[in-house]
Amino acid sequence: MAKDLVIGIDVGGQTTKCGIVDARGTVLSQTVIRSDETTDHEVFIASLAEALNHIIAEAQAEGRIRGIGVGAPNGNYYTGTIEYAPNLKWGGAKVIPFAKLLSEQMNGIPVSLTNDANAAAVGEMTYGAARGMKNFIMITLGTGVGSGIVIDGNVVYGHDGFAGELGHTCAVRHNGRACGCGKTGCLEAYCSATGVARTAREWLEMTDEPSELRSLDKITSKDVYDAAKDGDKLALKIFEYTGRILGEKLADFIEFSAPEAIVLFGGLARSKEFLTEPILNAMNANVLPLWRNKVKLVYSSLKESDAAILGASALAWEL
Amino acid sequence: MAKDLVIGIDVGGQTTKCGIVDARGTVLSQTVIRSDETTDHEVFIASLAEALNHIIAEAQAEGRIRGIGVGAPNGNYYTGTIEYAPNLKWGGAKVIPFAKLLSEQMNGIPVSLTNDANAAAVGEMTYGAARGMKNFIMITLGTGVGSGIVIDGNVVYGHDGFAGELGHTCAVRHNGRACGCGKTGCLEAYCSATGVARTAREWLEMTDEPSELRSLDKITSKDVYDAAKDGDKLALKIFEYTGRILGEKLADFIEFSAPEAIVLFGGLARSKEFLTEPILNAMNANVLPLWRNKVKLVYSSLKESDAAILGASALAWEL
Repeated sequence: MAKDLVIGIDVGGQTTKCGIVDARGTVLSQTVIRSDETTDHEVFIASLAEALNHIIAEAQAEGRIRGIGVGAPNGNYYTGTIEYAPNLKWGGAKVIPFAKLLSEQMNGIPVSLTNDANAAAVGEMTYGAARGMKNFIMITLGTGVGSGIVIDGNVVYGHDGFAGELGHTCAVRHNGRACGCGKTGCLEAYCSATGVARTAREWLEMTDEPSELRSLDKITSKDVYDAAKDGDKLALKIFEYTGRILGEKLADFIEFSAPEAIVLFGGLARSKEFLTEPILNAMNANVLPLWRNKVKLVYSSLKESDAAILGASALAWEL
Repeated sequence: MAKDLVIGIDVGGQTTKCGIVDARGTVLSQTVIRSDETTDHEVFIASLAEALNHIIAEAQAEGRIRGIGVGAPNGNYYTGTIEYAPNLKWGGAKVIPFAKLLSEQMNGIPVSLTNDANAAAVGEMTYGAARGMKNFIMITLGTGVGSGIVIDGNVVYGHDGFAGELGHTCAVRHNGRACGCGKTGCLEAYCSATGVARTAREWLEMTDEPSELRSLDKITSKDVYDAAKDGDKLALKIFEYTGRILGEKLADFIEFSAPEAIVLFGGLARSKEFLTEPILNAMNANVLPLWRNKVKLVYSSLKESDAAILGASALAWEL
């Protein structure tokens, strides 16, 4: 039987999404399982294999799966391992040979693994906003800030497989915010969804500026977005600040690899109506004249629920 | 006759060095001409061709030259042009089809061109400290700060051929020094030879700390080095400051491409006895734990006079 299908898996802290994908990028069958119900990675992998076998049966795809692609936090493309992933309940403080274990559970179907932002970059290049581009940088603005860097049509993995941690480059050198990674001032501490919520809390405390956010108990980036929609001045200023910090760092990244475009992806990227202008202003003010107003800023064109699966699946075609 | 030799040319602001190189990296014959005696690039290229013909005759290499490799400021690998190069007397405010013009003057010998830091990176990878490495970042600490980035064994040129302008990433965000590029706070304004001299002048003015540098009329980075050798405390602090700023930015670069090593090159790199410790301390303090104390800091192992020629010549072998 022709091996004409692949499986894409997006492993996240709370949930893991998986789908069967054909060569045209159509998701034939998909499912979601919890990632956070066990501290034992073997238990998790067994339940993942069970879910995969279920969607394989559902799509009548037995014997047709060519390979499995996995995007996971702290995933290493070279070794197929997930290493010291603090955001995975079963992942911290150890090196898990995830690709090997999953392949064993799936009767030897080959498994390729990379980090989630790299998978998203591959998906965007294969099916999305970066189609036809050979040089771009994908920035994922979610709970954290991830990145996938594509140069000459290839994802950059670096010497050890962990390249592309742009969320942990330094955005604020002095008195920067503490970041989950143990450093201070990281881009992620400002320009993630959590960073935006943190800015809101800090500013509400530091100033007495009126804002509809004051009435809320616990503020999320979605609340800041809703307030900005209502014309709330403080919320608008928060997005301006967030966009400026991101744009300043994007200028640095452009000076590194001279991409054709920056592609933004993830929950926070949905606030593009408030982010685009401050990002572009700061990016163009801080980049060398030769790139000023030349590097495109584009947003992911994939449905978010599909994007992660498609990205991981694109990896499987290379197997 | 076998085309068994190449020519390497390093175009600098003051002088241009050229040499005939064999496959083992031996410089058989070399010469230096002035770069700054004309504002007409055609006049310069004609005098360069004359110098090349002279060393070809000297090495009895007529008919044996396979190609010519050129490293030049603002050189573009894709187009063979030198674009808006403010440091070249005949280069500002125009796009010069340098490779094409030189090839025409040299009876059609093919010419490949790239920026000087990229050429140095290729030289280091082929003959020097980065031999055998597939992922490293070369930083040239000279009058300015240049960079050549190698990923998977290839120099990164980016979408437009100008990738690797790490000297113009932002080192000091607020109240940063004005840089020659028109921006402020660039790495180059602090960690170049001119940056070190500037730090010395600023600090001498701002403080009344005793220093042997006070007796000098015009301070160069070499003076600061000599003073540090004498144990001058201010001079030592200047290197500490310079090394810290460089190390902080190197951490960002590591998070981008996860290199095996950072290779330092150029005049200021000769101050390594004073720079290494502050660079490593800042680099390791600012990088993600997964790279802490793992990325090597190495210094160019090529004789400086040969390195630039060798680097450019390595480019010619690809022709």
